[in-house]
Amino acid sequence: MSTQNFADRLHDAIVARQSRVVIGLDPDFSKLPPALREKAQELPGPEGELEAISAFCRGIINATADIAVAYKPQVAFFERYGAAGYGVLQDLLVSHNEYLLIVDCKRGDIGTTSEAYAKAYFKLEGEPEPPLPCYAVTHNPYLGHDSIAPYEKYLAADRGMFLLAKTSNPSSAEFQDRLIDDVPLCDHVAAAVERWGEPFRGDYGYSSLGLVVGATFPETAARIRALAPHAPILVPGLETQGGKLTDAHHFADEKGLGAVFNFSRAVIYAYASGQFASSGDSSDFANCSRAAAEHYRRELNASLGV
Amino acid sequence: MSTQNFADRLHDAIVARQSRVVIGLDPDFSKLPPALREKAQELPGPEGELEAISAFCRGIINATADIAVAYKPQVAFFERYGAAGYGVLQDLLVSHNEYLLIVDCKRGDIGTTSEAYAKAYFKLEGEPEPPLPCYAVTHNPYLGHDSIAPYEKYLAADRGMFLLAKTSNPSSAEFQDRLIDDVPLCDHVAAAVERWGEPFRGDYGYSSLGLVVGATFPETAARIRALAPHAPILVPGLETQGGKLTDAHHFADEKGLGAVFNFSRAVIYAYASGQFASSGDSSDFANCSRAAAEHYRRELNASLGV
Repeated sequence: MSTQNFADRLHDAIVARQSRVVIGLDPDFSKLPPALREKAQELPGPEGELEAISAFCRGIINATADIAVAYKPQVAFFERYGAAGYGVLQDLLVSHNEYLLIVDCKRGDIGTTSEAYAKAYFKLEGEPEPPLPCYAVTHNPYLGHDSIAPYEKYLAADRGMFLLAKTSNPSSAEFQDRLIDDVPLCDHVAAAVERWGEPFRGDYGYSSLGLVVGATFPETAARIRALAPHAPILVPGLETQGGKLTDAHHFADEKGLGAVFNFSRAVIYAYASGQFASSGDSSDFANCSRAAAEHYRRELNASLGV
Repeated sequence: MSTQNFADRLHDAIVARQSRVVIGLDPDFSKLPPALREKAQELPGPEGELEAISAFCRGIINATADIAVAYKPQVAFFERYGAAGYGVLQDLLVSHNEYLLIVDCKRGDIGTTSEAYAKAYFKLEGEPEPPLPCYAVTHNPYLGHDSIAPYEKYLAADRGMFLLAKTSNPSSAEFQDRLIDDVPLCDHVAAAVERWGEPFRGDYGYSSLGLVVGATFPETAARIRALAPHAPILVPGLETQGGKLTDAHHFADEKGLGAVFNFSRAVIYAYASGQFASSGDSSDFANCSRAAAEHYRRELNASLGV
């Protein structure tokens, strides 16, 4: 891993692959292909499930490496198994560190605690590898700038962070849409990110401090895109959660850049149903995911006119 | 573990021990007693550090078990070591599940992800033990009720949750104090918790859905206490962060109940400085922590007039 600014690295990867597709690795054992679930029964309980989860994630990464611009492992699906789950997550991150890995951990704490979280995921050049190496993390803004400060030295080097502004779920309205000085809270977060991210801008103008804005709220996205023109946006909530590909332009800039779009269930469980479903015994699950990812890559590019 | 309502269990523990002291386990290797740090050098890198961290936490729990009403392990200080750190956290939780353990993880996500987090920490009666068993967790409110819904079945049984309303750090003002309809955001969170927690009230009137309010903001606490009379309050930020023991009554009810107060550094590193510092080689660190915890127990009770 070199010290290229994270926003520049993301930008280069988008252009090189002509892809804005992030694949979200949310491996839920009960939804894995039957072939993997059956094999898991050879090992006792959690061990078998984790073996299947590991094989599943690796299969999908291997089949989509030239299509996905980044992968977003969701920590919860590993933490659910405690230390053994963290072992699988750790191995997955370490053995795929040539990819842009964005760990979806949504941490947010203060002082020495926030420092400890940062050290779990990031390092500066010359430091020993962190246990859970990745290029970027998601983060919760509720505690304010104190929780971000310990990450700034990493953002100034080659790592990135996406701060939640507007999440894709229905009840995100409860607090995130409430008006403060006539402006929704999520817009205040976006404005803060635009300001806080200024020192971390790369050669293309984007900052390594980005935002999360749910695909389910395109009007919010259009406002936030204007409020935080230098923040790359990570967009969850397309397809399974109801966000529409045809709204992608609200999240991107006029060149179709500055935004990447996450697909979790719609890609990783493509084998199970829909137009990319497996026609056989589901052992071709990774190819189904590849077909789905390629479909979304093209659809997004078409929607963005790039 | 039986199915006693969590708020009742906490209440009974406060009364039985005459203590409102929660001990925060935030083990930072560089601050551990020299004796433990030296011993750690017998093992390679992280392994030695984790051995020391484990011995440190166990020493403090053993020395304070009759004084602390609960322990609050901070996940970040374990996650910082990846899977190996989670192994130590897991062992610590499993082997101390007779105590009220409140895991400070500040999670907050949606749908199946939030469910996965809940399963890491909680179980219903009759289900297999979760990997990271505890009685309660801290949680971030930013995503709204969707992120809490998957926890409700556990709250209805015998587990608890403390939702962040006002955190103890200076920049908590940036978003948490902003006015929405003339009322700070943290008050809206408190009002929502009062409403959401109604189904989880126990025999003493308190709900198993509580709040976090920093000791550094007693005026906010007085407002929130009135807004959410049924929510137990977990109070971080005393002493080291500047919160004052003499302000404790703003967080509690008129009987001095409904609030517990966390001490991390002021108790766990008591050996290193201040009136309870070690006079010897720091191998008596646990006794120093005991003396500090006992001091705070008495001071809090005196401040609350109980």
